[in-house]
Amino acid sequence: MQGLHAPFGLHARPAGHNIRWRVAQFPTPCLRINLAIARRNIRRLAEYAGRHGLKLRPHTKTHKSLEMSRLQVEAGAAGLTVAKAGEAEIISGACPDILVGYPAADESRAARLAQLARSKSVRVAVDTRAAADAIACAAREAGSTIGLLVDIDVGYHRTGVQSPADAVALAQYVDSCRGVRLDGIFLYPGDVRTPPGEQVQPMTAIGTVLGETLELWKSRGLAAPIVSGGSTPTAYQSHLVRQLTEIRPGTYIYNDMNTVWGGFASLDDCAAAVECTVVSDAVPGKVVMDAGSKTLGSDFNVIRPDGGFGHIPEFPEAKIVRLTEEHGEIDVSRCPIRPKIGRRLRVIPNHICPCVNLHDFAILDLEDGQSRQLRIDARGKVS
Amino acid sequence: MQGLHAPFGLHARPAGHNIRWRVAQFPTPCLRINLAIARRNIRRLAEYAGRHGLKLRPHTKTHKSLEMSRLQVEAGAAGLTVAKAGEAEIISGACPDILVGYPAADESRAARLAQLARSKSVRVAVDTRAAADAIACAAREAGSTIGLLVDIDVGYHRTGVQSPADAVALAQYVDSCRGVRLDGIFLYPGDVRTPPGEQVQPMTAIGTVLGETLELWKSRGLAAPIVSGGSTPTAYQSHLVRQLTEIRPGTYIYNDMNTVWGGFASLDDCAAAVECTVVSDAVPGKVVMDAGSKTLGSDFNVIRPDGGFGHIPEFPEAKIVRLTEEHGEIDVSRCPIRPKIGRRLRVIPNHICPCVNLHDFAILDLEDGQSRQLRIDARGKVS
Repeated sequence: MQGLHAPFGLHARPAGHNIRWRVAQFPTPCLRINLAIARRNIRRLAEYAGRHGLKLRPHTKTHKSLEMSRLQVEAGAAGLTVAKAGEAEIISGACPDILVGYPAADESRAARLAQLARSKSVRVAVDTRAAADAIACAAREAGSTIGLLVDIDVGYHRTGVQSPADAVALAQYVDSCRGVRLDGIFLYPGDVRTPPGEQVQPMTAIGTVLGETLELWKSRGLAAPIVSGGSTPTAYQSHLVRQLTEIRPGTYIYNDMNTVWGGFASLDDCAAAVECTVVSDAVPGKVVMDAGSKTLGSDFNVIRPDGGFGHIPEFPEAKIVRLTEEHGEIDVSRCPIRPKIGRRLRVIPNHICPCVNLHDFAILDLEDGQSRQLRIDARGKVS
Repeated sequence: MQGLHAPFGLHARPAGHNIRWRVAQFPTPCLRINLAIARRNIRRLAEYAGRHGLKLRPHTKTHKSLEMSRLQVEAGAAGLTVAKAGEAEIISGACPDILVGYPAADESRAARLAQLARSKSVRVAVDTRAAADAIACAAREAGSTIGLLVDIDVGYHRTGVQSPADAVALAQYVDSCRGVRLDGIFLYPGDVRTPPGEQVQPMTAIGTVLGETLELWKSRGLAAPIVSGGSTPTAYQSHLVRQLTEIRPGTYIYNDMNTVWGGFASLDDCAAAVECTVVSDAVPGKVVMDAGSKTLGSDFNVIRPDGGFGHIPEFPEAKIVRLTEEHGEIDVSRCPIRPKIGRRLRVIPNHICPCVNLHDFAILDLEDGQSRQLRIDARGKVS
């Protein structure tokens, strides 16, 4: 046991991921990260990216950890992605090349990023002239330069300009602004969630849009050294879009029930779980665990909205039917054995990113069987 | 401006809750608490409780703040309620009389509470012998005494023994255990959510169950000095259940769209809002604000599950249709005026408790027009 704060009173435990959790080992609920699985997930995608000549710029929103950031960089990541200025300020401690995959259209955020750009490489995705103006203005004031990527909507309809022509118009505008440097194109294929093998068509459609955009781009004498794609579900199909130069998946490091039920990972690829204790069995047909929405997050599963609030591998017939803030109610009526009070359960959340964001630290289970604390360094950096 | 950390660069603002937010005043998103409204909510319920001879033991899960705890105590709260041992350890700094409204059935939690009970008054709600055993054992080891309340299920079917007979059987068991003291009955009417005036019947039904339980209780020679009810929706109907000696509402201090749309509060009673900035309007018919599920929480509204993820009073026709982690997508197609990029918006969340739990601090807007930081002291105390 290394570096663990005294109040937890932790003891070393035998090696192996699938051992039974010993009662009272750690106070529950607690987030546990299996380092071997996280490393394997990191390595696998890094190898895929390397094989296809793609740069990897993992989105750190999933882990919000400097230590995990460093593992991704050591495995070959060319840079890292964040959403917020506060995350950029922290995560840039692990890597000096940061992409803010978020429109920093307001003065405050733009000023913080411009300050950071004095000593680090900072790029930002923009989809409006207003955002480009805010960033350019802040960069000029700080005496720094920020690289901008034009965000183009490829089907998720959240952010992004609406056509290749609009993309090029914004690119020309960016190119004319002092304080910023036009670096290329940004897209988020968040709507593409069909499993590998079935999704050649959506990825081909994205390639068509990008091809058209880049042709217009070139015809205006603009350069696009970066074409940045992303998302864990599409990660291993990135080579189908030959225009991409880099990808920004986040969830792949830990995985969750969204990626498992989506067909993008197996349960064995899940590096993160919330360890809970059964605290009540007074109501017939159910037991209550000590993890609710303030510990697991209350996201429904994207693929199976009626599938409950996470999965318990040791009790696959159990369904987490209701989360209140600190209670997780589990329907155990179909379980051959009903977990008793005091029994520890591992829950794989539906969506690991908001779950991690609820915890100040996780227990990191190392390859040698020891465990120690993992700080969630950028948790709470809302702005 | 008092006690605010330098990085926020805050400036005093004119008094009044309904002023327009000035751009770049605070970095967004940020949680803002209006002290005058919170005080009024606190005072109003304290007066109601006083009028009906009910003790008030507010649940601090909503604010997780020592300062708000102290305001509740100053207004006459007899004690405070928490869910977790970590919350008990912190919140007991504001009041030495703590009820843990949660089955502390595991060794670790029981041990922490038993330690705390050496210097404070600690009570715990239990619904199983296993929980009573764990707490009694921990209290004996710590040389302290913990008061136990028997949790009886009055319709929410989350925790609680299933009948008056079961309640009395558990009470007799508790009464026989060394280290604990039988203090009474605990209930959570979480299923009662019909507005005031329409809910005499459910409250009467609860009274019937309690009456029966207390009669049995008495016939066994047991005492029940405390009968603890709770919940904000039922708070102002508590006098309809004459057996209650105290109530434990939490949300009432801030309110949210669950209490507003439930008919338990008005928009003017909402003391908490997340201030956001519009950061994108690139997709037709919608704008994007800089607050998603990691800032607002992703709970659906209990009363209007299809009503969106919060309410924007200044743009009542707007609907927050999708939250991803850091993006809030707002359908503005029915708004007469479309909020522009950079525009600040106040969002009242569906469920304020998990929202507060996402923030390390809030901006507290004082009655004199000044603002300062409010720490969310017990945030992150998951165990």
